Amino acid sequence: MGKVYIKGAMEGVQVPMREILLSGGNSPVIVYDTSGPCTDPGVQVDIRKGLSPVRSKWIQERNDVDQLQESSSAFGRIRKSDPNLAGLRFQHIRKPLRAKPGRNVTQMHYARKGMITPEMEFIAIRENQMLEAAAHNGKGTFQHAGESFGASIPSRITPEFVRDEVARGRAIIPGSINHPEIEPMIIGRNFLVKINANIGNSAVASTIEEEVEKMIWATRWGSDTVMDLSTGKNIHETREWILRNSPVPIGTVPIYQALEKVGGKAEELTWELFRDTLIEQAEQGVDYFTIHAGVLLRYIPMTAGRKTGIVSRGGAIMAKWCLAHHRESFLYTHFEDICDIMKAYDVSFSLGDGLRPGSIADANDDAQFGELETLGELTKIAWKHEVQTMIEGPGHVPMHLIKVNMEKQIKECHEAPFYTLGPLTTDIAPGYDHITSGIGAAMIGWFGCAMLCYVTPKEHLGLPTKEDVKTGVITYKIAAHAADLAKGHPGAQQRDNALSDARFEFRWEDQFNLSLDPETARAFHDQTLPSENAKVAHFCSMCGPHFCSMKITEDVRQYAEQKKLDEKEALEAGMKEKSEEFKASGSEIYR
Amino acid sequence: MGKVYIKGAMEGVQVPMREILLSGGNSPVIVYDTSGPCTDPGVQVDIRKGLSPVRSKWIQERNDVDQLQESSSAFGRIRKSDPNLAGLRFQHIRKPLRAKPGRNVTQMHYARKGMITPEMEFIAIRENQMLEAAAHNGKGTFQHAGESFGASIPSRITPEFVRDEVARGRAIIPGSINHPEIEPMIIGRNFLVKINANIGNSAVASTIEEEVEKMIWATRWGSDTVMDLSTGKNIHETREWILRNSPVPIGTVPIYQALEKVGGKAEELTWELFRDTLIEQAEQGVDYFTIHAGVLLRYIPMTAGRKTGIVSRGGAIMAKWCLAHHRESFLYTHFEDICDIMKAYDVSFSLGDGLRPGSIADANDDAQFGELETLGELTKIAWKHEVQTMIEGPGHVPMHLIKVNMEKQIKECHEAPFYTLGPLTTDIAPGYDHITSGIGAAMIGWFGCAMLCYVTPKEHLGLPTKEDVKTGVITYKIAAHAADLAKGHPGAQQRDNALSDARFEFRWEDQFNLSLDPETARAFHDQTLPSENAKVAHFCSMCGPHFCSMKITEDVRQYAEQKKLDEKEALEAGMKEKSEEFKASGSEIYR
Repeated sequence: MGKVYIKGAMEGVQVPMREILLSGGNSPVIVYDTSGPCTDPGVQVDIRKGLSPVRSKWIQERNDVDQLQESSSAFGRIRKSDPNLAGLRFQHIRKPLRAKPGRNVTQMHYARKGMITPEMEFIAIRENQMLEAAAHNGKGTFQHAGESFGASIPSRITPEFVRDEVARGRAIIPGSINHPEIEPMIIGRNFLVKINANIGNSAVASTIEEEVEKMIWATRWGSDTVMDLSTGKNIHETREWILRNSPVPIGTVPIYQALEKVGGKAEELTWELFRDTLIEQAEQGVDYFTIHAGVLLRYIPMTAGRKTGIVSRGGAIMAKWCLAHHRESFLYTHFEDICDIMKAYDVSFSLGDGLRPGSIADANDDAQFGELETLGELTKIAWKHEVQTMIEGPGHVPMHLIKVNMEKQIKECHEAPFYTLGPLTTDIAPGYDHITSGIGAAMIGWFGCAMLCYVTPKEHLGLPTKEDVKTGVITYKIAAHAADLAKGHPGAQQRDNALSDARFEFRWEDQFNLSLDPETARAFHDQTLPSENAKVAHFCSMCGPHFCSMKITEDVRQYAEQKKLDEKEALEAGMKEKSEEFKASGSEIYR
Repeated sequence: MGKVYIKGAMEGVQVPMREILLSGGNSPVIVYDTSGPCTDPGVQVDIRKGLSPVRSKWIQERNDVDQLQESSSAFGRIRKSDPNLAGLRFQHIRKPLRAKPGRNVTQMHYARKGMITPEMEFIAIRENQMLEAAAHNGKGTFQHAGESFGASIPSRITPEFVRDEVARGRAIIPGSINHPEIEPMIIGRNFLVKINANIGNSAVASTIEEEVEKMIWATRWGSDTVMDLSTGKNIHETREWILRNSPVPIGTVPIYQALEKVGGKAEELTWELFRDTLIEQAEQGVDYFTIHAGVLLRYIPMTAGRKTGIVSRGGAIMAKWCLAHHRESFLYTHFEDICDIMKAYDVSFSLGDGLRPGSIADANDDAQFGELETLGELTKIAWKHEVQTMIEGPGHVPMHLIKVNMEKQIKECHEAPFYTLGPLTTDIAPGYDHITSGIGAAMIGWFGCAMLCYVTPKEHLGLPTKEDVKTGVITYKIAAHAADLAKGHPGAQQRDNALSDARFEFRWEDQFNLSLDPETARAFHDQTLPSENAKVAHFCSMCGPHFCSMKITEDVRQYAEQKKLDEKEALEAGMKEKSEEFKASGSEIYR
């Protein structure tokens, strides 16, 4: 097991993957790897210094950005110069970049100009997961055809395909020019299904160190992006530490911090304050912003009869503002101004579903679907500005109402990527909502959802611990992978095949290493059969030595071989006989 | 929270349910309860004496059974008289019952004669879960319509409906005449989706006490039936302890014990030995037998090219026997003899899928579907004998291939209930197969599967501990309930509604008590906010006191009310104006 890097044709393109070595002469399996330099034994990672800015050269060479002398955000400058924060502050803050006046630095802008960026080549290589290598392996190339419900998944991802998908808005590459540390990734229906992990402190719990550790932990287990949802103290400083150490895109909900700035009083929020917050965060390097711009005044009363009203924090804040001022929110009225900020840093939109259902009863109601239509209109405006855009989705939805969510999102939002929270398929299992939602996530991923936001066992009950983060991530890796299999994503079945081969051949260590969580698989096995001998034994604790169905199958194979031989002989004997009959009858035609 | 009993019209029909009391004047919620007398504080349960035989009178009054002086099984008699087993043996073994010569004592037989048994009335009351009471509750009666794919779920279950479903074979009531301790339950597509928990020792692990404890534990958390899959020592005695203490039907795979009797050598199995094993177990009170009678000689070579061959233990044993003797198995050739035994005790068939796929690659192949067709033929034979029958199903199946499994089963097996293991939707997560399979289970339950056999986190790795049993059961309760919701099962949404109401109103204790696992929900909440005050607080650790979306929703409701008033006033003002216009125009018609 180890880290490998695949070089691209473009300068500096070096795509990390994880190679799982197997025993018994079996070819290694290469898998997608989100963990960044932390898991490379050849790299010394110092959290106080942050990761190496691997994309810096690419960004500079496009020659469309200026380096600023200081943050353009008033709040950003205050935090930077506050001596009381010296002990908390990350020590190597880079000067922020911003597009040169009049320039657009989004990947969508480049894509529409026909430019293939190094980010795009990186992603093409990354998505292919070295399938060519797998094809050399005699075993395990079979894969079910899948059902993708009209997606357009190619058998091989090329940089040009990546460019085209980004150009038409069907995929986004979240990656701020101020977050050069990330290893580029893509979110779109025609690519591998991605997952997001939420972290972040609140007014009542956790510290910066804990949050940075959770981010690293989440990417270690496979989270493709991380959202920092902090609402407590020192949000600005926490975010800097997270960004400088994150190999994956970081998303935020800027309205949370804006609300902190006005002491929690939603009605005191202003466009100017929010704008400063967007710039503050964009210049730190946040890669995507959740913006709840679809909460319109006319939708708000539609939630009054709901069982659980408005459960999205962002949605509730905006609803409160709209009611207090009795007008449309500044997120909606200033949407084009927001686009101007986004395109100056290549921050992607994650258009928030502020009216998502918070209970089974409220699923798919008029408020939810009304807002979705508005998000579709906003998508068009964002695309006019060439700002990358994805759409957030529910929430709590019973299984039979999930598909229409996906279909409606594709239609209303013109194929912009969908990014859903679960959905939870029942309300009755607090403590197990990673599972209630993992069911819905797998299904909506199959139907076409591009990214699945995890739900941890603590959902509805408390803030996730490190262990909860891991459980959430693994559950969602399962959901995303089950979706890839069902969609028939090229090569998705290779790992299943390799693991099943290992299982069938009693290669226990290979089975553990191929699993999503080798540590847990090994620990569970060892609970009943701890000795090292058991890991080479041709049986396990479930059936014992004389009772193994896998062993019996060997006999079946021998029988089948013998039967084939017998049939062949019988056939040949029969053919000879028949041939002689024909000859005897005087016929000459016989094949 | 407490146990309540609903009396039926027939003598001795007393249906246990669990009443969840709520605060704030909210009506209690009544839920299905599988836990038996153990959770009734008014009942003193002594495991050494076993449960009270609540069905005995019903069975006796049908006047079609004889009480035998001793076991009709040679092996059963040997075990009973072996002095070395005295310490292990359950102390209050009842004399076995058997149908009088020529009589058929199955619920299907009664149903076809038009008889409504006390078991059927019990089930009708149980399935309705006191929905009439819920209807009195102002809140929470809304429910989504659901999509049941052609099932025939009535709005209210009547005893006559139960009878009719059993008569036509669409549902079974597993309940041996020698297991009078059970609280009757039903398995069928038009009833609540059920779950099964597997327990049982193996040659390398666990004791009788542990297995009895696991059974009680599984029913405590909601398992509707339990399978005892023991393959180790003292299977006979373990089973007696389990049966005498189980309020739910117990299933077994008799071939496992038969194999133990011939020292693990499959080829030495005989019909006579197997027959004796069936009788031994039937006279102890096993309620359903998994019989792998569909493993035909011609299907066996079809598994040779599989990635994971034959993974069903029963399937592998029978395949080995068939190959060794080069003829069809005694399960198939003696199928009608087996029916004769089943109907003398009312043991139900669970026709085993010996060729189920053990990996994603092997899903839905010719071997699997060939066997399924044979199980359909056997179903017809079983029904000819009026033996209740369900069909076992896979295994490992990617999401997009699940539905065809259900459709094919309904068609080939003439609507006999389907009972599946998961299915697991990916192979790559050993240690988390409760989740990989919970996804598939929820989906196939929605599509029409009647019972879901749980998979624990230890699947593929070791024998489940008590904690694993609980995790498996809760995961499958989630899957079954999500399926009931999606099917639109009457009243299924009541508990979701009540829990969401509690959540929205910050009734924390109610939220915990309404959940599938109150202990875990409470413990998770207390990890961040342990004080008792936090449980009456109108906020939680996720957002903190000033940031609560649920609080903001209250404002929205006030606004919506005001808006309605304003609109009403405006409308009335407008109406008045319009009315006057009309009058002025001379028109007289105006409503």
